[in-house]
Amino acid sequence: MSDSRAWRLASRPVGLPTAENWELTTDPIGEPGEGQVRVEVEYISLDPAMRGWLNDVPSYVPPVGIGEVMRAGGAGRVVASSDGRYAEGDHVIGMFGVQEQAVVDANGLTKVDVHAAPLPKWLSVLGMTGMTAYFGLLDIGRPEPGQTVVVSAAAGAVGSIVGQIAKLQGARAVGIAGGPEKCARLVEQYGFDAAIDYKSADVPRALREACPDRIDVYFDNVGGEILDAALAQLAFRARVVICGAISQYNESGPMRGPANYMSLLVNNASMTGYVVFHYASRYAEAARQLGEWYAAGKLTSREDIVSGLEEFPDALLKLFEGTNDGKLVLAVRE
Amino acid sequence: MSDSRAWRLASRPVGLPTAENWELTTDPIGEPGEGQVRVEVEYISLDPAMRGWLNDVPSYVPPVGIGEVMRAGGAGRVVASSDGRYAEGDHVIGMFGVQEQAVVDANGLTKVDVHAAPLPKWLSVLGMTGMTAYFGLLDIGRPEPGQTVVVSAAAGAVGSIVGQIAKLQGARAVGIAGGPEKCARLVEQYGFDAAIDYKSADVPRALREACPDRIDVYFDNVGGEILDAALAQLAFRARVVICGAISQYNESGPMRGPANYMSLLVNNASMTGYVVFHYASRYAEAARQLGEWYAAGKLTSREDIVSGLEEFPDALLKLFEGTNDGKLVLAVRE
Repeated sequence: MSDSRAWRLASRPVGLPTAENWELTTDPIGEPGEGQVRVEVEYISLDPAMRGWLNDVPSYVPPVGIGEVMRAGGAGRVVASSDGRYAEGDHVIGMFGVQEQAVVDANGLTKVDVHAAPLPKWLSVLGMTGMTAYFGLLDIGRPEPGQTVVVSAAAGAVGSIVGQIAKLQGARAVGIAGGPEKCARLVEQYGFDAAIDYKSADVPRALREACPDRIDVYFDNVGGEILDAALAQLAFRARVVICGAISQYNESGPMRGPANYMSLLVNNASMTGYVVFHYASRYAEAARQLGEWYAAGKLTSREDIVSGLEEFPDALLKLFEGTNDGKLVLAVRE
Repeated sequence: MSDSRAWRLASRPVGLPTAENWELTTDPIGEPGEGQVRVEVEYISLDPAMRGWLNDVPSYVPPVGIGEVMRAGGAGRVVASSDGRYAEGDHVIGMFGVQEQAVVDANGLTKVDVHAAPLPKWLSVLGMTGMTAYFGLLDIGRPEPGQTVVVSAAAGAVGSIVGQIAKLQGARAVGIAGGPEKCARLVEQYGFDAAIDYKSADVPRALREACPDRIDVYFDNVGGEILDAALAQLAFRARVVICGAISQYNESGPMRGPANYMSLLVNNASMTGYVVFHYASRYAEAARQLGEWYAAGKLTSREDIVSGLEEFPDALLKLFEGTNDGKLVLAVRE
């Protein structure tokens, strides 16, 4: 038996989560039962969707209960195994929670190759983040060569991959991000054709200028005014992909609905939401394709790594402040 | 040369159109040129979409200009023809405007058989109204046997046909309408499985009760609170069909967007708009199927006929007051 520290939900946040909503506990961690493994968690994925898991409302997963370890994806190393498929020292990804060690069912794990890519990449471009971009863009957005794809939160974990996959499909990619540094990175590092800084630009006008043939695919991570601006510029038969709505997650009042949704009618267009978990039967396909592109140098990702489990509450807020640059990952050890 | 009375747009309405927005004029009507016919208009289709054509904003058709004859679909009789395909006495439907006589291009006409169905039916179940229901439900909604289809404005021209086609597909049909008379008609005349009176019911609760397996297809004609209530009850992979938003057309402030749109994400669901004009290449298919169902007594429709061209401004308002019962048609002569 050893001790493991964990961040637990102490109370439900209203608006942005604060320090009082969390409790850092230390508990003994047991040995794995039949079919289980014990994992030493090395990296924890921090994602906007985590905010939704804190609300006591029905959704695609149950809310995190008060007193429970915060749910999170992670990457780590098997330190004890009672399952024939896994041995001590294997590197794995899975839903480990925000904690140092986790005893989990082996069926939920995926073995990863740290020689092919460092462990944080398996939470980013080669993991659920990459899968989220892959299925949302290719299965729902379905860009054709020469079409225009617009992505919000384009310098973020999912958005930066969406833009690169759009380019790999022969589409034009236009990214919306906050600040000149992120916008420069969109064009220089990720290969977007144009970038719009929503903090300084008139977004509706900038979209008109950057998308003279209007928008065929709009991949939305933010909701709010930017979603409305994109809706106003849809092309005929456009596809709007609803991946997230980070501008709305911490509103304590009602959500802001997209006032321009009748643009869907005028343009025979669609708006489709998804949760990547429902694509589980096709993860292998996506993993293979993302791995190929990554190995060939066609797909790059940037991880913003914050060190120290104790930093979790503050690190999470970077997502909502927009101060992360790339995939936000918490390294458990300094 | 004969004289023809016409309703022209005098000024753009803010909110509900009023008498001052219209002008009734009398002008000589010319003879048809090559490829044209002159039609004596007998019935004029009054539709919620007409409100949108009055706004000076880009849409799927140009706005009606100030001083122009109000755009409208109609049915009538050819009284003079300079096109080999049409002879005096033929009954036709087309875009004739709100006027007694129209000289129009013969290419835009469809000949109809008044022995198969009386002329107003060709503006209703056998015309664009039926086509709107047909394509929206079958091409976008795609209900499967046993699935639940919910329709708003269900006693209206399009909604009543959507419900009947849903039943013909083996789906459950739940209608939302205003008042006990309309709700009784949904069940007794159109064969809906359940009806919700939005004027007296708590719509979210009534939807939960009427849709224990949630909503697979939501066909929306109204927008606003009812759209939000339906979004909150979507089933996994539900399809929301945006056909109209009559609750919003006369708002002089901003449109109300659907605050519950993130239900699309949680349920991997889609919301798709359409304008029936874009299905022109498939009109023949729809006309054949609607005609078959109608002839077999499987599809019924109710026309609410207001008599007298001079009644146009008041008659149009019935759509927005919800006081029409079935397809609203203006009979040009008393």
